[in-house]
Amino acid sequence: MCELLGMECNVPTDIVFSFAGLTARGGRKGPHADGWGLALYEGKAARTFMEPAAAADSPLAIFLRNHPIKTLLAIAHVRKRTRGHVSLSNTHPFCRELFGRHFVFAHNGTVKDVRRFALGRFQPIGTTDSERAFCALLHKLERRFKTYPSSKRAFFAAVSEMGAEIGQKGTFNFLLGDGEHLFARCATKLHHIIRRAPFRQATLADDDFRIDFSEVTTPSDRVAVVATMPLTSDEEWTVGTPGTMWVFGDGKLKATLQSR
Amino acid sequence: MCELLGMECNVPTDIVFSFAGLTARGGRKGPHADGWGLALYEGKAARTFMEPAAAADSPLAIFLRNHPIKTLLAIAHVRKRTRGHVSLSNTHPFCRELFGRHFVFAHNGTVKDVRRFALGRFQPIGTTDSERAFCALLHKLERRFKTYPSSKRAFFAAVSEMGAEIGQKGTFNFLLGDGEHLFARCATKLHHIIRRAPFRQATLADDDFRIDFSEVTTPSDRVAVVATMPLTSDEEWTVGTPGTMWVFGDGKLKATLQSR
Repeated sequence: MCELLGMECNVPTDIVFSFAGLTARGGRKGPHADGWGLALYEGKAARTFMEPAAAADSPLAIFLRNHPIKTLLAIAHVRKRTRGHVSLSNTHPFCRELFGRHFVFAHNGTVKDVRRFALGRFQPIGTTDSERAFCALLHKLERRFKTYPSSKRAFFAAVSEMGAEIGQKGTFNFLLGDGEHLFARCATKLHHIIRRAPFRQATLADDDFRIDFSEVTTPSDRVAVVATMPLTSDEEWTVGTPGTMWVFGDGKLKATLQSR
Repeated sequence: MCELLGMECNVPTDIVFSFAGLTARGGRKGPHADGWGLALYEGKAARTFMEPAAAADSPLAIFLRNHPIKTLLAIAHVRKRTRGHVSLSNTHPFCRELFGRHFVFAHNGTVKDVRRFALGRFQPIGTTDSERAFCALLHKLERRFKTYPSSKRAFFAAVSEMGAEIGQKGTFNFLLGDGEHLFARCATKLHHIIRRAPFRQATLADDDFRIDFSEVTTPSDRVAVVATMPLTSDEEWTVGTPGTMWVFGDGKLKATLQSR
């Protein structure tokens, strides 16, 4: 199994604190030593840092902790492989262009029988069920919408419905970014928290790291964080209901959709 | 104008020496302070490090110099913008999936009237003529070949011909990687060198950096390096003829094609 981390904010924010918590699980605290990745958006474009190796000891992961990059939208992943060997092409998050923007995707779980879905122009580069499921989702979106959807409601409903369809067999917890929204589907296990004023202190559950958010924020800041398991020990995380998908935008929970 | 750097080898090689020479031109020695990028392949997948800022002072570029990643195929770029503002989405190299593999592209020059070419499914994310030219090239390749071309001869000829067509108006020096080959088109200015046994010493032209390749290689190693301008002061670089394209594979010059 793998662990997911997403962040979506209304002001550029660095993901160092949460990423530290996640990477502590990438080989040192957790059994997720087969790769890690971190995608950071700047507008419609994302850049992805990744390594097919344990995050806990990775010089690049440590570099990113020491040189924080601020962003409005980030998706990270630490991997314990279930399908596909350890390689760069099998390392999440995956990234593809659709509608003139990057879509970024990370998956927790195993999708079964994913070969039954058409992929159209989106061909997998690696051998994971995850990348194939992502390609299937993008192909469905491209067939449904010719351009980036102007109706958020239709867009959100489509992602939710398509996610349920692709994840019908197996376990399809995922994070999907499009540069504006963070889609977070809970098949079995997902949590979120929205940090806003009054900000307070938080302590990582898996690392010797505490932060006082009131010292690094302004009163209008809103930061939504999604993770497979709560990353902090002294905050209240909202537990995801299996079969629901959250959509975050501007640091707010914009929608909660149900589909099975 | 921008500067290009490509490396294609028969054994995994780090690009630190050449990258140091290139990044010395990224703001400190040269006027290319508007961004840099480095794409490194592992098989059919590439990961790209990039920053919309000067390479010479970039902590990430310094990190990559200090933590070399070995690869068979790499493409790097330092940017002095001519079209498009300074942003991540306008930073080379650009990367797209086609035929189930990453294609990576970097451009030197300005392509004019590039909007006359159809793009099909490949939509630009940024606003550069370069990314649009890359999208046009991929669309042409997808239309010509349904899958990754089995005939190298037809593949090489197609890239050469399409490059000439797209670059007909303007200046279209480019590097293109597909995970197996490095295509290097010279419109006005490009140089290459193939390092092989007996290896000797080389000194960077723009940085205080010298290396004795005989100490870090085996006799069967072959490393092809392409750059806008020669990176070393004490080696003999082959000068590109305008209107030709080199194709490198396994550290060898596989083909030289002419097209105007």
